[in-house]
This record gives sequence, structure tokens and C-alpha cells, in this order.
Amino acid sequence: MSDVLLRGGLPWGLGSPADLLVRDGLIHEVGPGLDAPGAQVADITGQFVLPGLVEAHCHLDKTLYGGPWVPHSADDTLAGRIGNDLGRRAEVGVPDAGRITALLERMSAAGTTHVRTHTDIDPRVGLRGVEAVREAAARVPVEVRQVAFPQHGVLTNPGTAELLEEALKSGVEAVGGLDPAGIDRDPVRHLDVIFGLAERYGAHVDIHLHDGGTLGGWELELIIERTRALGLGGRVAVSHAYALGQLDEAAQDRLAQGLAEAGVALVTAAVYSFPVPPVKKLRAAGVTLACGHDGIRDLWGPYGSGDMLERAMHLAYRSTFRRDEDIELALEAATTGGARLLGLQGYGLAPGDRADLVVLPCGGAAEAVVVHPARTLVMKDGVVLHN
Amino acid sequence: MSDVLLRGGLPWGLGSPADLLVRDGLIHEVGPGLDAPGAQVADITGQFVLPGLVEAHCHLDKTLYGGPWVPHSADDTLAGRIGNDLGRRAEVGVPDAGRITALLERMSAAGTTHVRTHTDIDPRVGLRGVEAVREAAARVPVEVRQVAFPQHGVLTNPGTAELLEEALKSGVEAVGGLDPAGIDRDPVRHLDVIFGLAERYGAHVDIHLHDGGTLGGWELELIIERTRALGLGGRVAVSHAYALGQLDEAAQDRLAQGLAEAGVALVTAAVYSFPVPPVKKLRAAGVTLACGHDGIRDLWGPYGSGDMLERAMHLAYRSTFRRDEDIELALEAATTGGARLLGLQGYGLAPGDRADLVVLPCGGAAEAVVVHPARTLVMKDGVVLHN
Repeated sequence: MSDVLLRGGLPWGLGSPADLLVRDGLIHEVGPGLDAPGAQVADITGQFVLPGLVEAHCHLDKTLYGGPWVPHSADDTLAGRIGNDLGRRAEVGVPDAGRITALLERMSAAGTTHVRTHTDIDPRVGLRGVEAVREAAARVPVEVRQVAFPQHGVLTNPGTAELLEEALKSGVEAVGGLDPAGIDRDPVRHLDVIFGLAERYGAHVDIHLHDGGTLGGWELELIIERTRALGLGGRVAVSHAYALGQLDEAAQDRLAQGLAEAGVALVTAAVYSFPVPPVKKLRAAGVTLACGHDGIRDLWGPYGSGDMLERAMHLAYRSTFRRDEDIELALEAATTGGARLLGLQGYGLAPGDRADLVVLPCGGAAEAVVVHPARTLVMKDGVVLHN
Repeated sequence: MSDVLLRGGLPWGLGSPADLLVRDGLIHEVGPGLDAPGAQVADITGQFVLPGLVEAHCHLDKTLYGGPWVPHSADDTLAGRIGNDLGRRAEVGVPDAGRITALLERMSAAGTTHVRTHTDIDPRVGLRGVEAVREAAARVPVEVRQVAFPQHGVLTNPGTAELLEEALKSGVEAVGGLDPAGIDRDPVRHLDVIFGLAERYGAHVDIHLHDGGTLGGWELELIIERTRALGLGGRVAVSHAYALGQLDEAAQDRLAQGLAEAGVALVTAAVYSFPVPPVKKLRAAGVTLACGHDGIRDLWGPYGSGDMLERAMHLAYRSTFRRDEDIELALEAATTGGARLLGLQGYGLAPGDRADLVVLPCGGAAEAVVVHPARTLVMKDGVVLHN
């Protein structure tokens, strides 16, 4: 693999233009006026350079991406959407490795280099989703990690816990949960099962929590307590956590502190009109905050493009962020926050980091999020994929 | 001007593929297998055809579009944003006909054929905004109508009412208002001034109403009462109307009925996390609903692309619309709703209508909103502008 020299870009956070020299899949040197005889040179003068985008929460296995438009067919209730999903999954042909591949290719073209996806695990679908995601991920230069996700409940759906365990045995990196109170009806036992699996298999945890208000707040406490008790800090995340956007400031402050101290991360998608967690407060408290699309073009809803900069725009927009330094927090969630969530090593723009890069025709972080312009260049492990 | 034959498209609402024959700036014929010797032919087989998009609420005069990125500099209060606007307007050089032209060109390329813009009128800027918008509008094939807008108050900003009148005398089509209670502190006198001007000059009315809850609801009542008393139905609109998204169902129902009966239209932008009026309820009651961006890249905020299909996506998304027929309501707001608001004649896709068209590489209304793909072709008055 020949060296690649990116000439004259504006690496995020550096504050001045610099060349980036890429060698053997790593960032070898960063600085002005680098000399690299024999290197493939790309002139990116004045363009913004980011590390690879991190999609921290999606549902690849469910996607209909790349196929014809499928009108949404569920009613407006959660029960209706769950029933619609179960009823139509086979008919529309998900999980499908071809559609997952199409979506991963779109994500890669938009600069995403790492994905965490929640894959449905239940007695009807078994581990077929896990396998379809693996098959697709092998075809596209994006690193994909899966969460074994009990979309239709654990306690309320016998056989699911055993399948979650089978998924973890097969190498799935994380175990998920879903509204331990609102859906599974027994939050303590639900969390005991999930955390028990995580402990036995050294897996990460990522729990969907839509339960709102004080109920959701209390479930966050349960998750914080278990994370502390089991020493799983840095390996546990809560996705959505709408409750955090609904509680009063005092409760938000207390939970932000608890999440930060326990090492529990938050993942937000800022979808529809659902409450968005208080981004500035959480970051100020030191909570790791990551961002993802949630569903993309599936039986749960037709939206989503696969572009993580557009998704970061939604997060900033719904947070009513106007100032550059605030909007930049959304970009952090779509990059470094996701990298922390996944525990990525060598992520960034410093010498020695893996050469996973995105180049954009704009001058800085806020503009990248607001405009989310077409990518100039995407690089994964030192290989130029799109330009 | 030679005839243009658009071959094989899917005109919105027709239900089957059809050719469109355009002659002398009008839609001459619509149907399958049209024959048109000598016509310029565009093959748009299987592509979706819409009438021109209508941007019903923006602030062209304030835009920084097309210039370098300007970091947002106001604090998070409304007073801070107003002060920032007044303080920095001259420094950043708005209003500027060049930037307005750049934005109108972008809008046109995205398929917008009609724009209603709220232009600041106050003793410091005088009518310079009105003139800059006129200068730009003369350069771009988009029809622009202005609202003389008292951004900094009427009663609280002496000299403004006289300037609003001067603007109307000069041919500005509508007079605006702004939070008659919350900003101008005397809703009855404020509305008397605005409606008085509308009556004397035969102008439309479009009032910014951010005032929330029961206060905003009561102001809507005042507007409904005046519209009825003066017989101005069909010429009055309220923009934003956040209150409608906050009140209980009974109050929403009552106001929706009142707006429909009085002929008061609503314009929504679905910006940030601000409340969105209940779209389905309003349409079911027969209220005209239009859509616009609000500010685009200006001192009030950095967002906005000028693409009305993307804006319709925000409206559908914030309304949690997933089904095709619901999402289509957002497209109606960005097309026929805006046309009704402006009282456009000959708007649509029927023979005799003006040939203002947009062609999209997708199969229907919901997909057009959700994906808002790059435009295949834009036509204004029978002239192909972008393809």
C-alpha cells in the first residue's frame, strides 16, 4: 500500500492547516509542509478533516434500504408497530444481507467507519439477523458491532434469554434490553438477566429506554446501580433515555452525575418529536454521549439517510443549538463520543491513529453539521474509498 | 418558445403515468401517449411530477447565504437575538441583494417557484430590505411576494407604522405583525394598526405569533374576530402559532374550527424543538396550511438549505408522520397550501395551469418528502431551468 499525503486540510481541533501523511493504514505524521516522495497526493486545501463517523445506534437487520418504497403500515401505537413488525417481517423479506449491504455502502460513502447495530433476537427470527449483518459487514469496509436486542421482550417472550446467550457465545459484542418496566413489566428481573449475561460473557450492555418521566428516571438509577456494583463502567450504555429530556433540572443534574460517575454512556437519535436528552448538561458532567439514526427505512418508519452528519444536524437542531461551540457537541457525539462508547483504540487524527478519515468542503465543525455537504473523500484504514 | 413534452412522468394525484405537453408557458395537455411534433422532449419515465414548490415564510432580507460561514453570536434569549440582529446587521452587510440572489437561485434549483418573505421594516433600515429583495427577485425566475414585517415591534418602535404604510404604498403585498401581546405589549392596538393598514391598502396579513399557551390561543381568537369583522377571509395568515401545539385537544378543536370558518391560514416552519401545530386536525377542519423555512443562514440562526422538500420532511418528521397519506400532508403544505395562502391563480398540474413544475426521481409524495432527492428538472412558466 503506497503512502497517501492529504495536502493542506484543516484537521478538526488542530486550529491551523496541516498535511496528513498516511502510511500502512495509520496516520503517520501531521503538520505543515510535509514531504513524502512517492506518496499518492490529494490536495484538500482549506477542507475540513474529521475522523471517521461513528453510527452508534441503528437497526441494520430491519432495513428495507435500497429496495422499492414500502408504505408504512402500522397504526400510531407502540403495540401496533410491534405487531406490524412481527406480522410483516417475513413478507417484506427482512433480515436481508443485500439490503443491509446497500445501507452499509451508503453509510461508508457518507464517511461512517464504525457502526453499532441492535439486531433483533427472538424465537421466531433466531440468530438469522445476526448472520445477515455479519454477511453484509464482511462485504463493506465499515466495522460493525452488534447488540443482541430483545425487540419483543425478554421475560415476556420465553426463549429469548437463551437466544441472547447463544448470540453472545457466537461472538456478538453486546447485549441489549428494552424498557425493563414499560415493555418487559419487571425491571429488576429484566436488568438482572441482561447484566448477568454481560458479566458472564464480558459483553457490553446497551438498553433501549423509552419509558418516560419519573419511571424512566428510576430505571436509569437501577442501571447506574448495577453498573457500579458489577464494575462494568465504560461498558454500559442507555439508548434514547427520553426521560432525561422530561425531568426537571434537579433530577437531570443528579442523573447526569450518576451516569458520569458510574461510566454509563448515553446514545441519542433525536428522532421525530421525542424528547432529546440535555446534551450540554450531560457533556458538562462528563457523560459519554453518542449518536445514531435508530431505524433507517424499515417497518418502524420510513426516515433516515445513513448520513451521520445529517443525523448530528438533527441532534443539534432539536437541542436548539445555534452557536458553533454548541453545534460542535453534536459532531462530537457522532465521532469521538461514539468511539468512546465502542471503546475504539487508535481513533482520532493524531500520529499513530488509524487512518479512518472524512474530508469535507467546509471550514469547521458547526458548518459540517449544519450543511452536511457531500463528502470530498472518505478513507478507511488508509485506503481511499470515495472521492 | 417551443413546446416541451415531458414523457411518461407520474403527475401527483393522477394515479397513472401521463405525458405533459407544455405550450406558451402553460400546461396544454395531460394524458398518455401525447403526440407533439416539433416539441422538445424530456423522457421522465417513472418520475414523480409536482407543481412548483411554494416557500411560504422566509426572511430573504436577513440572509447571509452564499457568503462565508458566520458563527452565531447571540445569547439564548429572544431579547439577545433581537439585540444581536440590530447590532450586527450593518457589520455583516444585510440586507444584500447579492446574497438574496444567491439564496433565490438555490431555492429555484430545488424547485421553488413562489416565495413569500417577511422583510424587516423599521426606522433604522427603512425600506432598504424591500428594495434589496426586489432587486434580487428581478434576477431569478421565482415569484417573490413580500410581507412588510415589524421585526422590532410597532407600538414599541415609533415610526414603524408609518414605514409599514409606506411599504404598502410602494406595492408590498402584505403587512405583518409580531407577537401582539408578548413583544408589542398591547395586542388590541397592535392588531388594530395591522388590520387597519390591510383594509386601507387591500393587503394580505401575516402575523408572527410565538406567544404560547392560552395567551397565544387568545390572540388567535382576536385575529379570527378581526378577520371576520372586516371580511378579510382568505387574506389573513398566522405564522408559527406555537400555542396551537401546546393547548389541549378541546381548545385546538375550537380554534381549528374558528380559523377555518374565518378563512385564516396557518404557516408553519417546524423549526428547532418549538411546538408544531396539529397538522392533521387543522387540515381535517379545512384550515389552509402552508410551510416555509423561517430564517435561512442569518443572524438568528445558521440552519436552512432553501430546499422546500427538506423543509416538508422536517414538518412531517416533527409531526411524527410515518404513513404515506400523513406525510403527504406536509407536501401539500409546501405546494397547494402555499398556493392557497398566496391566492395563486392557475396553480396545479391540470391543462390551463401555469407550467411551474418539479420532476423528482421517486415514485410518490411520501418518498419525495422523506428522501427529498436531487431534482431531475425544474420548470418555471414553461422554461426548463434546471435539469
